[in-house]
Amino acid sequence: MKLYGYWRSSAAYRVRIAMNLKSLVAEQTSVHLVNDGGEQHHEAYAQMNAQELVPSLMIEENGEQRVLTQSLAIIEYLDEVYPEASLLPSAPFDKSIVRAMALMVACETHPLNNLKVLQYLACELDIADEKKTAWYHHWVKEGFTALEKQLARHSGVFCFGDRPTLADICLVPQVYNAKRFKVDMSAYPNIERVNAHCLTLQAFIDAVPENQADAV
Amino acid sequence: MKLYGYWRSSAAYRVRIAMNLKSLVAEQTSVHLVNDGGEQHHEAYAQMNAQELVPSLMIEENGEQRVLTQSLAIIEYLDEVYPEASLLPSAPFDKSIVRAMALMVACETHPLNNLKVLQYLACELDIADEKKTAWYHHWVKEGFTALEKQLARHSGVFCFGDRPTLADICLVPQVYNAKRFKVDMSAYPNIERVNAHCLTLQAFIDAVPENQADAV
Repeated sequence: MKLYGYWRSSAAYRVRIAMNLKSLVAEQTSVHLVNDGGEQHHEAYAQMNAQELVPSLMIEENGEQRVLTQSLAIIEYLDEVYPEASLLPSAPFDKSIVRAMALMVACETHPLNNLKVLQYLACELDIADEKKTAWYHHWVKEGFTALEKQLARHSGVFCFGDRPTLADICLVPQVYNAKRFKVDMSAYPNIERVNAHCLTLQAFIDAVPENQADAV
Repeated sequence: MKLYGYWRSSAAYRVRIAMNLKSLVAEQTSVHLVNDGGEQHHEAYAQMNAQELVPSLMIEENGEQRVLTQSLAIIEYLDEVYPEASLLPSAPFDKSIVRAMALMVACETHPLNNLKVLQYLACELDIADEKKTAWYHHWVKEGFTALEKQLARHSGVFCFGDRPTLADICLVPQVYNAKRFKVDMSAYPNIERVNAHCLTLQAFIDAVPENQADAV
């Protein structure tokens, strides 16, 4: 397997955590999201990933090379094909609670705050830095406020009970990102506690952006 | 089962299609997203859905009422508990292609263009209508350009082959929304073709916003 990612991409960070939790090894290829107009837009990569986003996971199936995209679809695939160290609880209702937590980050918080959106605000809408930061904080706070309530109901040492799941895989990169943008975390004690616990595990530590070969 | 939705919400529209495809019946409860400061923010609803978003699906399990949130998590739950008329292909790679198509809409396109984001642009950032429309079109076009390529590779009469899946369930509400905002669809012949085919099926027709009891 070959993982195309970027050290600071939250979506690539999710896939790294999932692979580490399952002790899966992939060759890492860095796609620099800023240099040279963004390597994700270069033709060879765009051929592979129609959205021109990281991550992509190249796998071999029946002797053919195939490409998986979208971090949550990649992780669900890995969880089905490599069921050891399952990333979802087994009961359907529990599974839906975990998926909903993951989607709260992946569909409501992260999409509003990623690089291309912040670039659009600055370049197309002439939004000043201060208001851009307020935008960032607004969506993180909205997402974390809801997630904090869900963790109060369902968390153990992890987001859902005492085993790491897809929810933790989405949470930790989002907290990393929020701290980078100096979001005050004091209103989210459960998020802070779970995030801190995750970061005691080697699978999470090894996936941290600064621990990647392409980190600057 | 009881579905809390709103006629024009794309996320509620997705769940309606999924339930119709599976011939599942739920009592429909309308949560008006605009009137009265937005009924989704009223305490009774916020207790049930920490994100104060529609849809929510209330189910009964072991004699207890339980609430599912996040449209994709709800649909995956229904697909697991009611496997008849499956909404995902069975092979893991195919499944990941379908999930990735669904996530292209749910994580990249829809989140940037929903009501609360457009309200923030207008009220907090003083973005004029014309630039707000350009914002809307920009993200839809980016999403549809990528999705069009995936449909060219994988579509039959539906997004993936010849059976309706989670991808169609996400596509149709997004196209409905794009047309409401007058996005020029001529660059997306496969999207148009698949959308038109879906809308010949009673399951999709019955889920259309204008066919809901709370439609204005």
